[in-house]
Amino acid sequence: MYFTPPLARLIEEFQKFPGVGPKSAQRMAFYVLNMKAEDVAKLSETIVQAKEKVKHCSRCFHLSADDPCEICVNDRRDPSTICVVADSRDVVALEKTREYRGYYHVLNGLISPLEGRGPEQLTVRELVNRAPDERVKEVILAINPTIEGDATVLYISRLLKPLDVKLSRIAFGLPVGADLEYADEITLTRALEGRREI
Amino acid sequence: MYFTPPLARLIEEFQKFPGVGPKSAQRMAFYVLNMKAEDVAKLSETIVQAKEKVKHCSRCFHLSADDPCEICVNDRRDPSTICVVADSRDVVALEKTREYRGYYHVLNGLISPLEGRGPEQLTVRELVNRAPDERVKEVILAINPTIEGDATVLYISRLLKPLDVKLSRIAFGLPVGADLEYADEITLTRALEGRREI
Repeated sequence: MYFTPPLARLIEEFQKFPGVGPKSAQRMAFYVLNMKAEDVAKLSETIVQAKEKVKHCSRCFHLSADDPCEICVNDRRDPSTICVVADSRDVVALEKTREYRGYYHVLNGLISPLEGRGPEQLTVRELVNRAPDERVKEVILAINPTIEGDATVLYISRLLKPLDVKLSRIAFGLPVGADLEYADEITLTRALEGRREI
Repeated sequence: MYFTPPLARLIEEFQKFPGVGPKSAQRMAFYVLNMKAEDVAKLSETIVQAKEKVKHCSRCFHLSADDPCEICVNDRRDPSTICVVADSRDVVALEKTREYRGYYHVLNGLISPLEGRGPEQLTVRELVNRAPDERVKEVILAINPTIEGDATVLYISRLLKPLDVKLSRIAFGLPVGADLEYADEITLTRALEGRREI
């Protein structure tokens, strides 16, 4: 313990954050010491408030201060599609496109035997309960093309197949602006598989 | 504002930290939401406490919860040397060597005309007041070999020259474990200048 204890404790707290090493934690702690006292009070309050107020929407499981969330209560959205994502950040990424107008369902993770996460830890059951709603025509799986993502897609599609609902998965291929020459083989394979007539 | 307001505000706060971009700020905010409520309360309290309790030692200007600091009150240290550094982090770096047993003086920055920081913003005057203490035999400048560092060393050495005290600067050269072949020219020049008879 070379820093004075209250400072050492702060550095230690910051080091627990993901992606923050000892040097970054030091810089962050020194930044706090150089902030105005009122800004430090505001930061501390914002942290407590976020933890206290932000919950999962009981319908779609998106993070929200309201329940149901801002998206679920918006009745100008299209009730015929549910877009299934792993994480609330994916909802935000899709909302930024301003293209998708349906509702969401956040799984809160993907199936991962290695990390001991099975379907019962996810909100799969709640999705299966939502899907039979007669207004729902299509369930879009916007899930990463990883091993965990593929396993989750397989599991969900088996459960939803018996229901009278169209099931789709977002396209994988060459990202816009990318160079074919530098694309990896798996991306190219996916791009070939997903080819469309023009 | 795509995230729910309390979460968006937290992401915004984290983004103000040095070296934290939008994606890191998001990860940090999600980490807070996944923390236990009691750990969030502790984090928030640690931030406020650090800001409230950590001050500059009135003698050496090292960051400390006590005044004078833990180092200044330790009378088993060697009063014959004062090591001058730019920043409290430098004190910690030097303490970690367990080699230096004297006292410190933290300048709280370096002279930088570009950033509008002159000697009057630093604790140079306080250093000049400390140096004539009859127990002080040597002032060691442990200041980075940068333009700002060199300017600060020049300024301080002019003020301390008239006093009856030895003035030295830490050595610059090839770092231990480095390869001469890959060293930059300025480092090699400094290493040649600082050569010592063996």
